[in-house]
Amino acid sequence: MIAEILSTGDEILTGSIVDSNSAYIAEKLALNGVNVVRHTCVGDDRSALVSVLKEIGVRADLAVITGGLGPTADDLTAETAAMAAGVELVYSEIADRSIDDFFKNHGRLRRDSDKKQAMLPEGAECIVNPVGTAPGFMVKVGKCHVFCVPGVPAEMQRMLSDSVLPAIQKLLGNDRAVLLTRTISVFGMSEAAVGEHLLELEEKFPGIKLGLCAEFPEIKVKLYVRSEVENNPHKIVGEASDWVLGKIGKHVFSKTGGSMASEVGRLLGETNSTLSVAESCTGGLISHMLTNVPGSSSYFLFSAITYSNQAKMDVLGVSSKSLEKFGAVSEDIAKEMAEGARRVSGSLYGLSTSGIAGPDGGTDEKPVGTICIGVAGPDFLKGFRYNLSFGSRSRNKTIFAMAALELLRRELNPNFIK
Amino acid sequence: MIAEILSTGDEILTGSIVDSNSAYIAEKLALNGVNVVRHTCVGDDRSALVSVLKEIGVRADLAVITGGLGPTADDLTAETAAMAAGVELVYSEIADRSIDDFFKNHGRLRRDSDKKQAMLPEGAECIVNPVGTAPGFMVKVGKCHVFCVPGVPAEMQRMLSDSVLPAIQKLLGNDRAVLLTRTISVFGMSEAAVGEHLLELEEKFPGIKLGLCAEFPEIKVKLYVRSEVENNPHKIVGEASDWVLGKIGKHVFSKTGGSMASEVGRLLGETNSTLSVAESCTGGLISHMLTNVPGSSSYFLFSAITYSNQAKMDVLGVSSKSLEKFGAVSEDIAKEMAEGARRVSGSLYGLSTSGIAGPDGGTDEKPVGTICIGVAGPDFLKGFRYNLSFGSRSRNKTIFAMAALELLRRELNPNFIK
Repeated sequence: MIAEILSTGDEILTGSIVDSNSAYIAEKLALNGVNVVRHTCVGDDRSALVSVLKEIGVRADLAVITGGLGPTADDLTAETAAMAAGVELVYSEIADRSIDDFFKNHGRLRRDSDKKQAMLPEGAECIVNPVGTAPGFMVKVGKCHVFCVPGVPAEMQRMLSDSVLPAIQKLLGNDRAVLLTRTISVFGMSEAAVGEHLLELEEKFPGIKLGLCAEFPEIKVKLYVRSEVENNPHKIVGEASDWVLGKIGKHVFSKTGGSMASEVGRLLGETNSTLSVAESCTGGLISHMLTNVPGSSSYFLFSAITYSNQAKMDVLGVSSKSLEKFGAVSEDIAKEMAEGARRVSGSLYGLSTSGIAGPDGGTDEKPVGTICIGVAGPDFLKGFRYNLSFGSRSRNKTIFAMAALELLRRELNPNFIK
Repeated sequence: MIAEILSTGDEILTGSIVDSNSAYIAEKLALNGVNVVRHTCVGDDRSALVSVLKEIGVRADLAVITGGLGPTADDLTAETAAMAAGVELVYSEIADRSIDDFFKNHGRLRRDSDKKQAMLPEGAECIVNPVGTAPGFMVKVGKCHVFCVPGVPAEMQRMLSDSVLPAIQKLLGNDRAVLLTRTISVFGMSEAAVGEHLLELEEKFPGIKLGLCAEFPEIKVKLYVRSEVENNPHKIVGEASDWVLGKIGKHVFSKTGGSMASEVGRLLGETNSTLSVAESCTGGLISHMLTNVPGSSSYFLFSAITYSNQAKMDVLGVSSKSLEKFGAVSEDIAKEMAEGARRVSGSLYGLSTSGIAGPDGGTDEKPVGTICIGVAGPDFLKGFRYNLSFGSRSRNKTIFAMAALELLRRELNPNFIK
């Protein structure tokens, strides 16, 4: 069963807002075993909408359309879907009642303009909207079952799970494309290098399709189990996953597609350990990443962002002698910073960065991209130095932060082979 | 001139990542006077790519394609663009040199698989990639000029501004829809409220088209000068901009579309002032935003991310009595934190946050979304308290950080009418 997604609206077409609905719907459809082959976006334009709906009616068996169901003149989805289907707009009592119910339940006054939303293409089935004023509908265009829902994410998501996905399950029967997906998160290898190492995967595991996805600075390895696999898809994906770990396990930081910060958080949480951070060139990004994880306050105690040398000395106790001898960007200072963060906060582990994110500040000896990282624990204190230059200040900050978290993760993970 | 945007890649098609590239490109094309009528996304699938490229070759005069330029077997853009154009893939010396240069400049080893990236459709013009390994290219498919760039946002953005947009300007000649654009950055109003305040703008300034663009938590007000305006478009846009400032100036933080952090940095730099920060619930985000601005080390001295009460006392000198009396999330503690950051680092200004980002930790008295902000200067110390709950931990952190920087900006800006 071939599916497509269509998002409508000038605000998406002109780039005023990013279309996150299509990714949301695509992922839900994939999880339901539907094979999505194309997304399209067109504006609030009658002829563009009719053209693309007719195309979809020829190409696809199933489509989800977002947007254009509101009460104003530029909301054209019902009208153009009717045109593409070759039917008239007719009054729907179910749609009218859905709108009435919403206004009643929310103590709001219904306007005349909302009457337009009760007009659906002839033969369409109304999809009730429990969280907004705009009802959706399903109509056949050509060979395609077209499901129209609002563009407001919360309304779309609710109607998708309540009505659209159950209806799609009925349509699908046994015709599902992918049974399940496993994601493995990798850091420290290029996409090309990962691809080369996993070249033989599909040959070794005929039921598995490999997908690589670069989300700078990570690579996500996706293992899709094809629907041909009849027996025990979980066992097959487990074996393929083990094979991947055998090939590139050193660079895998999560076997379940988790983020670096949540993985570090998990390892800290498991051992009831605490962490403090001292950041120079990463400027708060490590702390931001760590504290994006809900519950991080149970292991993350403190971070000092010490841009100035004075702050490194005053807050972290870095010695002025070392600063003079080695310079702020050095393994020695990174080690003193990591140890200082531990000492100041009483945390079990300390992590630090000092480097040159650019665009200025580089020298021949310490060019832009130079990053020194310190990792301190109850019985160790280590310094590292790399050159990781990726073309912009923000990309450099990102890779510095990931590298620091990865070095800590390796210390925290008892299974990591050093 | 009709334009389309095509994003490619299984990771977008399956919803693993949200396609933010298309919105970015759509906006840049609009600013350059190009009329975008459709976005499409297809996966890493040979026949789907060839079909859609052929369709675009019939429908559009101009297209920007992202993704599929990497070295691995599922990177199919060059191959399928050649098929759609009816030409062969041929070795491009310029592309090969572009790849070589990147590896040399970054001290990295080039792999054999990267050779694939030097093969471009016959007759294509190479678009050099200064920040990554994958060169892009422009090739004619049907009547359409197809510009292919990588899907990595930083690489796409750089190549768009360096090469693609200048080439498009040449193609356009006098066929431009917009002469120039002015962007005004707004914080603290909803898009609907901004729209209501500026309702009469297009009537008052007939040569101007108004665009509103919500980039959470900011609203960008765009003033497009239409190509009909013959005399002095700069004067007209200046007058319209002044009119906008008269209506919503209180909420405008940049008259040139700048970021909040760069605006705060500019105000600090102008007066040779320095800043330190004490963050609790924002967890490093304020520091990360400030240090994303190149040159920020000249005014940003230090930040303490004090998640634990102990760290608030030990590092910032917050009193245990106050913590007991008011609780960590209070205006009083925020004030002590801001003053503590100043004192510890010797900076002229101090800024602090303490609040509840969620999803847990809220109480009836202090629900998720409660944010207390402290601003300290040479002759003032102020505390603020708001409830700004926007549905997720990361959105709450973002709006907390923006609100704190906005309060500091108002103190730094001598022209701000309080």
